[in-house]
Amino acid sequence: MTAARAPLQIAITTGEPAGVGPELTAQALAAAAAHWPDAQFTVLGDAGLLAERAKAVGVDWAVLTGGARVRVAHRPLAAAAQAGKLDAANGRYVLGLLDDAIDGAEAGTYDAIVTAPLQKSTINDAGVPFTGHTEYLAERTRTPRVVMMLAGTGARPLRVALATTHLPLKDVPAALTIDGLLETLAIIDHDLRRDFGLPVPRILVTGLNPHAGENGYLGREEIDVISPALKLAAERGIDARGPYPADTLFQPRYLEEADCVLAMFHDQGLPVLKYATFGEGVNITLGLPIIRTSVDHGTALDLAGTGRADAGSLVAAIDAAVSMARNRRGV
Amino acid sequence: MTAARAPLQIAITTGEPAGVGPELTAQALAAAAAHWPDAQFTVLGDAGLLAERAKAVGVDWAVLTGGARVRVAHRPLAAAAQAGKLDAANGRYVLGLLDDAIDGAEAGTYDAIVTAPLQKSTINDAGVPFTGHTEYLAERTRTPRVVMMLAGTGARPLRVALATTHLPLKDVPAALTIDGLLETLAIIDHDLRRDFGLPVPRILVTGLNPHAGENGYLGREEIDVISPALKLAAERGIDARGPYPADTLFQPRYLEEADCVLAMFHDQGLPVLKYATFGEGVNITLGLPIIRTSVDHGTALDLAGTGRADAGSLVAAIDAAVSMARNRRGV
Repeated sequence: MTAARAPLQIAITTGEPAGVGPELTAQALAAAAAHWPDAQFTVLGDAGLLAERAKAVGVDWAVLTGGARVRVAHRPLAAAAQAGKLDAANGRYVLGLLDDAIDGAEAGTYDAIVTAPLQKSTINDAGVPFTGHTEYLAERTRTPRVVMMLAGTGARPLRVALATTHLPLKDVPAALTIDGLLETLAIIDHDLRRDFGLPVPRILVTGLNPHAGENGYLGREEIDVISPALKLAAERGIDARGPYPADTLFQPRYLEEADCVLAMFHDQGLPVLKYATFGEGVNITLGLPIIRTSVDHGTALDLAGTGRADAGSLVAAIDAAVSMARNRRGV
Repeated sequence: MTAARAPLQIAITTGEPAGVGPELTAQALAAAAAHWPDAQFTVLGDAGLLAERAKAVGVDWAVLTGGARVRVAHRPLAAAAQAGKLDAANGRYVLGLLDDAIDGAEAGTYDAIVTAPLQKSTINDAGVPFTGHTEYLAERTRTPRVVMMLAGTGARPLRVALATTHLPLKDVPAALTIDGLLETLAIIDHDLRRDFGLPVPRILVTGLNPHAGENGYLGREEIDVISPALKLAAERGIDARGPYPADTLFQPRYLEEADCVLAMFHDQGLPVLKYATFGEGVNITLGLPIIRTSVDHGTALDLAGTGRADAGSLVAAIDAAVSMARNRRGV
């Protein structure tokens, strides 16, 4: 006897109410929900706001949410939201959406969370210290270390993980440690196995310095930190190689042999990733107990309410979340 | 009466004799010399070595050099050169080729120099302190500041110039100064006008830190150094804008409005440039009194003598040199 499988449950937090999150969610689900027949979607946000923004961009929200495929988990706005106009009164609303999604994922109600963009300043101006989605998710799930990975879509997606993320450039060299890199590599290895169906993930690692330090002539972190971390990783059965010069690593002949590139810092890895994915990259947080993907763009306040923002990155983020959820469930 | 124009004179230094420079020169000229009907080429190297490597890769060197289009300026090797095997005995030979080219360009014999790759260690091991082609050219031409720019080919080439080049990452922030950036912008502006036929070059400038420092939250160099330099540049009539986040700057909607991106450091700008140009980028030294272009790859010792190295970057470097020489001559 084969039991019918329960649908995958995907939560989408619609984020900053003055931004493009609500309308992109409506557009993405209207355009693509049928692409994921094994998934159901819970849209977290103010029901009135969602209906209004859906209408503004020509999506029949009543029809879309009328069946079993898409439902709304209503949380009321604190103040009426106007497209393009930030209001700190709604800072706690935005955080509340995130809390709802995290609680649901930890309770097993959701298989994955997809987050639309939020505006940090709205939350900070509401008196809540907040440095970003990723940090908040780590803290709320009591995760000591997470890894930010951006990925393209398609059969052989480029994936770039970061050893450091939102640090001033001058603080990057000191932030790299053997233990930290080893943990980062272990998280990438673990999560690519569990959630991406890769039996032995192949990770290529950049150097920190130009030409990967040129044997110490252009910096010693490759010798003192990165190579020792790679050696320890190899002893743990992690297939991580490097350090390679970042400027020549992103070539087909290397990328064809890799499942993920680990770059040492933000602007070493992300310009090429975003160039390669035409702005349709997906931001994936590795190391969390829950699955979380995100768009790789911001709130685009100037486009909110116009329907001119491109839902491509959100569609890709949903697609990645569904795929990861399938892998984790073993379906 | 229209006088016949004298052909453009392009010098090609064939670089490290154990590397792919000699054979790539033969391949590039055999394949493409006819593409530049207004140019003549002088190949600098040991005549016997050039003939031998040309033969090894199937180029009829006697025919190629039998007319007026391609001639050899012979400088003898100090020791017989073997493909793939470095020999410090030839370090001064490699430098000599460069000296011949520089002397010829300064004397007006050559309109431009194209350099094939050399191996720094061969020269250093010969007892000559040498940090790179670019630095040597600057010193020999008494140029206090040069700017390294890499460029793709085609009608709308991506061009990326660097504010700093071969520095350990930890030394980058301190190396950025208002005066230095202003000089760099002035050189880019000047040379793109003179040698690239761009009446008002549009330069987009990256920040140093992630998200261009996020208003100071992720570093202050944008506020303290880059923005003041841009303000001074604007006062000089230079169309330079920024600082922009490097990870989102390399998108068509921005690049379409730019003639050049100025990145703050090596691994911020070059991974995306090399990805975009499929390894066929051209390295151009701005700020010199002479025109100099180069391949953007190394000596590829493992491929030397096999004919399997790709001459694409050298063809692109020659093409860029010819185009710049035409612009400078006003033809």
